[in-house]
Amino acid sequence: MSDFELDSRLATDSVLVAEGPLSQVRLMNDERFPWLVLVPRLAGVTEWIELDGEQQDKLRTELNRACKALKGADGVEKINIGALGNIVRQLHFHVIGRHDGDPAWPGPVWGSGPAHRYEPGALDQHVAYWKERLGYPAQS
Amino acid sequence: MSDFELDSRLATDSVLVAEGPLSQVRLMNDERFPWLVLVPRLAGVTEWIELDGEQQDKLRTELNRACKALKGADGVEKINIGALGNIVRQLHFHVIGRHDGDPAWPGPVWGSGPAHRYEPGALDQHVAYWKERLGYPAQS
Repeated sequence: MSDFELDSRLATDSVLVAEGPLSQVRLMNDERFPWLVLVPRLAGVTEWIELDGEQQDKLRTELNRACKALKGADGVEKINIGALGNIVRQLHFHVIGRHDGDPAWPGPVWGSGPAHRYEPGALDQHVAYWKERLGYPAQS
Repeated sequence: MSDFELDSRLATDSVLVAEGPLSQVRLMNDERFPWLVLVPRLAGVTEWIELDGEQQDKLRTELNRACKALKGADGVEKINIGALGNIVRQLHFHVIGRHDGDPAWPGPVWGSGPAHRYEPGALDQHVAYWKERLGYPAQS
């Protein structure tokens, strides 16, 4: 795993919130949606079924944690989970909180127009908010 | 689980291919994409995290099997996995084979326009094809 390198587009579009057992947990820099992305720290993996059983177990746990963090958040009525990778091939799972009336409702968030970036101060606040909701132990 | 009833829209848009340990495995009646849908036979479940650990295990196994069936199929370069449920709330997982140049590429299949239905004979052939590729034991 030492040669893991985050895809440049993911690096541009999202910020690190926490390190899970397998994955980086990142927040998409798009204030239109509460939108987390899990990126396993593995080089050269593009499909879910390329993960071995132990890696799938870890990712499942991370997905559950992300879903639970979103479930109780303000204005989240439905959770969308997706692993597409048509553009960014590095394996990543989207976990997105949705509600009736959000800018893409009821369609998918992907392809719903350009991101609206957070103001820098608001981005920091949202990262701190999701870090607390996710509840991963602090990095040493 | 005795009060499971398939959502009417899923019933209209897809056909049964096989019964997995937890879910109906269905083929979307849309010849534009090789598109499987897993629908857990559970009443009133809308989110992945409402499944207990054993149910998640079963669904994971079904997802892996669907992915493997798609992976080796003609013209599949990338697999898309999604659980949205913004319109149909009954929990269902999409597993779709994609390739550069397909009618929605590189966007998501959801919201990519109306389905192109298979001709009846072609639909039967595709159901048989996916049943064999999935390899579930025949129903007694």
